[in-house]
Amino acid sequence: MTSPTADCRPRHVLCVGAAVLDTLFRVKAIPQVPGKVLPYDMLQVAEGMASSAAFAIIRLGGMASLWGAVGDDQAGEQILTELQRAGIDVSGSARVAGARSAVSTILIDDDGERLIVPFYDPRLHENVREVTADDLTAFDSVMVDVRWPALALKVLRTARTAGKPAILDGDVAPPHIIDMLAKEADHIIFSEPAAHSLSQISDPAGMVSFLKRQYRQALVVVTAGERGSYWWDEEMGTVAHMPAFRIKTIDTLAAGDIFHGAYALAISEGLATDAAIRMASAAAALKCSVFGGRLGAPDRIAVSALLDEAACR
Amino acid sequence: MTSPTADCRPRHVLCVGAAVLDTLFRVKAIPQVPGKVLPYDMLQVAEGMASSAAFAIIRLGGMASLWGAVGDDQAGEQILTELQRAGIDVSGSARVAGARSAVSTILIDDDGERLIVPFYDPRLHENVREVTADDLTAFDSVMVDVRWPALALKVLRTARTAGKPAILDGDVAPPHIIDMLAKEADHIIFSEPAAHSLSQISDPAGMVSFLKRQYRQALVVVTAGERGSYWWDEEMGTVAHMPAFRIKTIDTLAAGDIFHGAYALAISEGLATDAAIRMASAAAALKCSVFGGRLGAPDRIAVSALLDEAACR
Repeated sequence: MTSPTADCRPRHVLCVGAAVLDTLFRVKAIPQVPGKVLPYDMLQVAEGMASSAAFAIIRLGGMASLWGAVGDDQAGEQILTELQRAGIDVSGSARVAGARSAVSTILIDDDGERLIVPFYDPRLHENVREVTADDLTAFDSVMVDVRWPALALKVLRTARTAGKPAILDGDVAPPHIIDMLAKEADHIIFSEPAAHSLSQISDPAGMVSFLKRQYRQALVVVTAGERGSYWWDEEMGTVAHMPAFRIKTIDTLAAGDIFHGAYALAISEGLATDAAIRMASAAAALKCSVFGGRLGAPDRIAVSALLDEAACR
Repeated sequence: MTSPTADCRPRHVLCVGAAVLDTLFRVKAIPQVPGKVLPYDMLQVAEGMASSAAFAIIRLGGMASLWGAVGDDQAGEQILTELQRAGIDVSGSARVAGARSAVSTILIDDDGERLIVPFYDPRLHENVREVTADDLTAFDSVMVDVRWPALALKVLRTARTAGKPAILDGDVAPPHIIDMLAKEADHIIFSEPAAHSLSQISDPAGMVSFLKRQYRQALVVVTAGERGSYWWDEEMGTVAHMPAFRIKTIDTLAAGDIFHGAYALAISEGLATDAAIRMASAAAALKCSVFGGRLGAPDRIAVSALLDEAACR
């Protein structure tokens, strides 16, 4: 796949939101009663919605900065160190005195079922800096999640004013939060549960029609896992659908985040909507074939190979 | 309570075994199906059987060294740093190249039920150093758990040869391991589940009689939680029993380890068996009244107050 951008400069995406220290345990089955369950594998990884999206961008050859918040504890040190080593610029992230870093334990069983125990300290995201157009000069686009709404709002507004794509990862959050952010975005990629909670509609195509009426200014996408992606096609004035790539699923953790990162990079490179969704779908599918949360994000060669293979069928 | 030792020198106990980074989540109820459960509190703490026992000793005014093993990862760094800051001498602990540190997630619900997910890398305890009498010169007694059996065995043997109390935390482990260690100990404090697995007997007094016949060289104790402690009274030639102190239970995590640490310190100070068990019971009971695993270990003043209060009733 050749990038359609006029120059070879890697695109730089600002990702705003979650930075979490995840502990993943692989177990034969999720326990149904209290007691002890012995995992056969364990992995600790710094990730979270915006962080995993940033990592996907790096893996695909782009540049990514993360504006997130961690506490002044050892977990915070570990999160920022690990993301920085992964190639993400974390110099704009905050270490909040007196707050505890977000940590999460995830049990994944052999049927792909998950038990997630996420802990967030509300003090992490209490304060927000000012955001000016100058702060965004280095970036080609911005991608925000719902974890740090006050900062996400400022970043979306400033980016749109500056004429840069302003992309929202519309995952489950209190309705007033997601609505506040959705109104300020150019591109909204809703997860199916979030789209359902906003629309009370159960089919993804219906969700897209409903949400497009709410957020007319934005390109509206709903991702529905193995059922693929649905979005509002502006030219046709109807809902478009792209099936998911078929792949053996091992671990879906962070697959949505990888989708968002790949999509933001593709849009920054000037790809059309359907091509961006296609690239994001391929990246997310490849991630699902590998255990380890965001660590399974594919590189550009793997994504291109999957897209070429699909095109030849 | 006045210490019966002739001098005021704090006693120094060598603790051998587990060093784990625990993540404790407090939840309203342990989940029974996959999905997401939101904890209302979270705590990360370096502990584990031998580590928590060492901490109990420090809190009670003694000195403690830990011989444990961690990996060359960030969790290992965190474990040793935290235990050292708590006052434990960890200079004899190993950082094992290429191994991962032990980490564990524990969900504790409002009824005191627990779901424990412990991960151990077998490479942590593959290698064992030599242990000579010189290595034990600084210590008044040794207390080993079942986590690093090959090292525990050498330490128990060397301590006994040197005439120092050799104490075993006889918690659940493969029967051949616990039997191997029990044969070399002067004092064995079995947990009730471990005593049951070795004896197939269900009442604690019966367990003590059975296990005393197996390990005639040792003082044999079985701890049975809120039902108190049972041991073989050598003078009377029968099983003795001490009820547990009544206290509102919030968190029993590490209570057994606090018992072992307090017992080892009491024995090092020259206390008689029943006085040592009494002090250990009081320390364990006080720990149960506080959330936070080993962090709830009481100081000497609190233990003395509980013992005095009980004596005045």
